[in-house]
Amino acid sequence: MNTEQPYLLTPGPITTTLSVKQAMLQDWGSWDGDFRAKTAELCRHLIALIDGEDSHVCVPLQGSGTFAVEATLATLVPKAGKLLVLMNGAYGQRMGKIMDYLGRDYVALDKGDYAPPRAEEVEAVLVADPAITHVAVVHCETSSGILNPIEEIAEVVARHQRGLIIDSMSAFGAVAISAKTVQFDALISSANKCFEGVPGFGFSLIRQRALEASKGNAHSLSMDLLDQWQYLAKTGQWRYTPPTHVVAAFLQALKEHGEEGGVAGRHARYQRNQQRLVAGMRQLGFETLLSDEWLSPIIITFFSPGHEHFDFQTFYDRMKAQGFIIYPGKLTAAESFRLGCIGQLHDPQIDAVLAAVATVLNEMNIPDGTPAHALNAAASA
Amino acid sequence: MNTEQPYLLTPGPITTTLSVKQAMLQDWGSWDGDFRAKTAELCRHLIALIDGEDSHVCVPLQGSGTFAVEATLATLVPKAGKLLVLMNGAYGQRMGKIMDYLGRDYVALDKGDYAPPRAEEVEAVLVADPAITHVAVVHCETSSGILNPIEEIAEVVARHQRGLIIDSMSAFGAVAISAKTVQFDALISSANKCFEGVPGFGFSLIRQRALEASKGNAHSLSMDLLDQWQYLAKTGQWRYTPPTHVVAAFLQALKEHGEEGGVAGRHARYQRNQQRLVAGMRQLGFETLLSDEWLSPIIITFFSPGHEHFDFQTFYDRMKAQGFIIYPGKLTAAESFRLGCIGQLHDPQIDAVLAAVATVLNEMNIPDGTPAHALNAAASA
Repeated sequence: MNTEQPYLLTPGPITTTLSVKQAMLQDWGSWDGDFRAKTAELCRHLIALIDGEDSHVCVPLQGSGTFAVEATLATLVPKAGKLLVLMNGAYGQRMGKIMDYLGRDYVALDKGDYAPPRAEEVEAVLVADPAITHVAVVHCETSSGILNPIEEIAEVVARHQRGLIIDSMSAFGAVAISAKTVQFDALISSANKCFEGVPGFGFSLIRQRALEASKGNAHSLSMDLLDQWQYLAKTGQWRYTPPTHVVAAFLQALKEHGEEGGVAGRHARYQRNQQRLVAGMRQLGFETLLSDEWLSPIIITFFSPGHEHFDFQTFYDRMKAQGFIIYPGKLTAAESFRLGCIGQLHDPQIDAVLAAVATVLNEMNIPDGTPAHALNAAASA
Repeated sequence: MNTEQPYLLTPGPITTTLSVKQAMLQDWGSWDGDFRAKTAELCRHLIALIDGEDSHVCVPLQGSGTFAVEATLATLVPKAGKLLVLMNGAYGQRMGKIMDYLGRDYVALDKGDYAPPRAEEVEAVLVADPAITHVAVVHCETSSGILNPIEEIAEVVARHQRGLIIDSMSAFGAVAISAKTVQFDALISSANKCFEGVPGFGFSLIRQRALEASKGNAHSLSMDLLDQWQYLAKTGQWRYTPPTHVVAAFLQALKEHGEEGGVAGRHARYQRNQQRLVAGMRQLGFETLLSDEWLSPIIITFFSPGHEHFDFQTFYDRMKAQGFIIYPGKLTAAESFRLGCIGQLHDPQIDAVLAAVATVLNEMNIPDGTPAHALNAAASA
């Protein structure tokens, strides 16, 4: 394999095509018409992907995905509002932390490391607490790799007439969602996940009516998405200097996303990657944290082998020497690591990952059939 | 000239070298040691440029320069603090707007469109208002192109024992400043100005003692520079996904900055660009807003010709057809436009700009010797 540029088996930044990176070999004036046309096309394309032409607008924001999540929560949840945060991992917890900084009221439904929040649980909280104005959920919680049941959650939130905010950072682009069938006030994602662009900005696809009603909510000039959108609508420009090269790369990435068959095509490849990876890893004796029902096509958590020779840093370094950057686990209850399925990974790369894992286990003197780290009793209860 | 990729005569994004852009032709894992080494080198290099090894730390932040300015103000000015903002253009005004969002106390010394704030004026305000804890100033105010007298301001702020925050977005890298001779709590800049990187992040060089005392100040999780720095110090990683390609480009840009002779070498070229540009434009009948004493080597404001045939959009479009992207003016008192001196501009490009201006004036039927738009009476008073 290519050891000069290791493949990234991570939840982003991911391995992009050379043509996406080559789109950055030019400089643009952010004020110029050529660049404004790129921004307009970016917004049009993203809104079309959610069938949102009649309901939603696209607000791009400089910075990482977390900036876009914070900006969306601050812009949409009023100072006198109350947020229900559905948590089952680090990204749900982070939304709680954002609310702590904002000093706005929220309550958490915390399912721990990886269990999914279910509609009936959400409904019980909403019925019990009429002060809740909004609900926030992570689409694919990459802490565990679980794909949360967004449709059933959206249905119950809409029925109880609260606003839904979806952090779809690592899912949008490869997991279909339509604003015509799933009701949400905002869906947030970023350039460098399933769209296979490079990192540098995020975006929020916001119900125009909700955005227009948000005046005075934002805690920050830079993160005021109403102001960002109004300026964009008036001038065609981002309010402050956009990451011009990253935007150009994203436009190329959107083109290639379309050529692969859009969301359906991207989903099919990632799903195939996931199935091939999980089957191969199971053959090598690894176990997944989640049952097949909850596995996402984005990233998979595997338990580490329960063998005294296993050490994550050694495993990481040796996998890197084989040409693959893997990702550490985030479970509190058991030793684990993660392998991503997204980015420029196809059958040959997945097969090479599996061959590399076999080689490295051999180098580390970990015999075939070593049982995995088990969840401890408290966590599996 | 190269009309495929017009030269950017703007205050950033600017024209970068091909080698800086080519540094983006690879993907990095943001968690990986290779990328952590890049971040460490970036911080070490920037701190060395201000002789800050014993006093200051570097905190990079995702987003545009404005994000870094807001983050620095919010992290350093306590909720019970009070800021004096020195204003003479849009960027000083923007700091006031940030303080409005933060809901923290501030007062402005507003010199209007382009007059410099002087030490004795600052001193009078500080003496009269002991509640002021910090002073914020823009180093080069690109609204007019003025280089503000930072040394005399820093001297008076230090003598009155207040903290100084310098927005050096468009000056740092080409205008020398040493923490050993100029006392400041923070100096903020970004990747895509005088360092000639591409846009996508900013950074704040902060007095470590001031940063350590800032716990609880920040209004925002994403913009908490204390948290960002502590995480970086502990893990070597940015807290949230960094713009990996933009960082790689910046490392190459820093290398080329060093090869050009560092800040002194970069300053010499920009100063030469400015003098050549101003002399040539004056020969064509243009007038600068500022007297030579206050001209920066960054960007110059010229009055538009006072001729009925002159129309900025036409001038812009025709200059673009000649291979140059120019920048609109920002004066309230007279029609103007701006030409930048920064980025990959050398003698041949400056000469070509001057030739293009002559050609375009001719195309627009504006005769040689047409007097410039004058400032109106109120503004020149």
